[in-house]
Amino acid sequence: MVQRGQRVEEAILARRERVNDAIPDDLPVVEPERLYEASRYLLDAGGKRLRPTMVLLAAEALADVEPLSVDYRAFPALSGDDVDVMSAAVSVEMIQSFTLIHDDIMDDDDLRRGVPAVHREYDLETAILAGDTLYSKAFESMLETGAEPDRSVQAVSKLASTCTKICEGQAFDIDFESRDAVTPDEYLEMVELKTAVLYAASAAIPAELLGADEEIDALYGYGLDVGRAFQIQDDLLDLTTPSEKLGKQRGSDLVEDKQTLITLHAREQGVDVDSLVDTDSVEAVTEAEIDEAVERLEEAGSIDYARETAHELIASGKENLQILPDNEARDLLEGIADYLVEREY
Amino acid sequence: MVQRGQRVEEAILARRERVNDAIPDDLPVVEPERLYEASRYLLDAGGKRLRPTMVLLAAEALADVEPLSVDYRAFPALSGDDVDVMSAAVSVEMIQSFTLIHDDIMDDDDLRRGVPAVHREYDLETAILAGDTLYSKAFESMLETGAEPDRSVQAVSKLASTCTKICEGQAFDIDFESRDAVTPDEYLEMVELKTAVLYAASAAIPAELLGADEEIDALYGYGLDVGRAFQIQDDLLDLTTPSEKLGKQRGSDLVEDKQTLITLHAREQGVDVDSLVDTDSVEAVTEAEIDEAVERLEEAGSIDYARETAHELIASGKENLQILPDNEARDLLEGIADYLVEREY
Repeated sequence: MVQRGQRVEEAILARRERVNDAIPDDLPVVEPERLYEASRYLLDAGGKRLRPTMVLLAAEALADVEPLSVDYRAFPALSGDDVDVMSAAVSVEMIQSFTLIHDDIMDDDDLRRGVPAVHREYDLETAILAGDTLYSKAFESMLETGAEPDRSVQAVSKLASTCTKICEGQAFDIDFESRDAVTPDEYLEMVELKTAVLYAASAAIPAELLGADEEIDALYGYGLDVGRAFQIQDDLLDLTTPSEKLGKQRGSDLVEDKQTLITLHAREQGVDVDSLVDTDSVEAVTEAEIDEAVERLEEAGSIDYARETAHELIASGKENLQILPDNEARDLLEGIADYLVEREY
Repeated sequence: MVQRGQRVEEAILARRERVNDAIPDDLPVVEPERLYEASRYLLDAGGKRLRPTMVLLAAEALADVEPLSVDYRAFPALSGDDVDVMSAAVSVEMIQSFTLIHDDIMDDDDLRRGVPAVHREYDLETAILAGDTLYSKAFESMLETGAEPDRSVQAVSKLASTCTKICEGQAFDIDFESRDAVTPDEYLEMVELKTAVLYAASAAIPAELLGADEEIDALYGYGLDVGRAFQIQDDLLDLTTPSEKLGKQRGSDLVEDKQTLITLHAREQGVDVDSLVDTDSVEAVTEAEIDEAVERLEEAGSIDYARETAHELIASGKENLQILPDNEARDLLEGIADYLVEREY
């Protein structure tokens, strides 16, 4: 198990490096430079590149090739044509980056990936425009894979409907902040739209581009399950990982009254979630307060509920992969699913 | 001449009505309703629908059919297939609406089409998200025309690169505000990117969807010329149309120190443009002040220069249309070009 964990981390790192090399090629800083610098700012600040890694691994699993043995820019489709799956990988990463830039404006967040948010480093105008530029550039990249036209239409249609869903998810998220009663199911639907659909598109688009029709739905389902589990794990980590490891105050979601699957479950169990932590700022809250709140959530069964939900989603996600050829890339996709809920930060 | 002017206006009105009917079908208000209401807000507030009208007229000219005689949802491609050119028309209007919503945030404008800007009627978050939703919905609509896949790829690629250029144009426009020396050529390049490329795409995309390869470049050139002329005419009208007709203070560009082709030309002629109007607010400026400023610009030849530039562009735009079959729709496209520089508000 540990051994696979290491292999998975190495697989992510190796593909991250390839994606990092590809980004300046697909999104060069040209005139007007300030706009393109702002568009690249968050991409260059880091990130695990999980979504593009999923694109690349799904392509390798489908083509049944030795991982990292084939040029991602000229990947064999079932028809025999070369497809630039790296261009698709960079495309989904650009979409991810565009949503982060606009979300940070909407949430008025100052920091992202350890650096100032784009609207802080630059300004509001430039941040809106940088996001808009990444949006169209992502579509351009998805259209430049060299896949058969009907395949390109399928892939870019998925990208477009995915973006619409992400917007809907963000709208639900904003709406939930001002609503008292949100059910766990409504929360999970919001997470599906806001977060999981981009994982789903990342896993399914290579099947569309390469012409692997029978695997499209299964890979989409895999990404959807894994993406939802990923968000639930994020919610769990906020409560269970020490602040030093987390890079921010443990329990900050509770302090900021953020709704999560855990608090929504607790509320349904009759827990007075709003008064779990009285302190209003992450600077003032004590570890003892958080400990006590977590204990209450454990007693209500809410932490176990979230953990079980995440594990069920991971199991379902991995089950979806059984349709793929039994190879190393498939094993790594399964490993990524486990990795997402086993990670501690 | 008057007679054609009337026919052109009627042609625009008739297609506007069709487009207005199509918008609720292609962009229905679904959950989350607030998001979709905000996305529809500006579209429902009005607009001439010039860009979608260009899509529809170009399709009619290319197919060489009697105007308004064929269902826009099932338009004959050269291959014999049915193409939903209305879906493409709504797509470009959604892109136009998205850019207006985001531009109004960037420029901190309060009013648009006589109603509050979306970020005023709703809020900043919703306005950003409504723009983002229109963006992806526009791509979805462009992918749903039923055109041959290679045609769809061509059309949607043009839409994506057009959006990138619009972002670049807006970035140049923002950049110019803080720059002293902008040349008329730089200004015209900015106008091309910010405004004209969407007219160009509107005129050319029907040729791509219907398979009229030889007419693509000519129609693109037509739109590019007409779009640039349109912006120059806007700049001229600000100086020459009485405030009552204009719906805002005449000369407001001068009061607000906005760079236009006219002021940039005058600056090159040695006119001290910054002190043409001393008053800083449109409320305080007098008609006499504006009159005197306009007289100085006339003496410098700047108004004639802008007028000539616009007319040359219109002549060039119409010349581009000669490749089309000689029919009523082509005549109306020529008429729209004239209409854009003959209009008085």
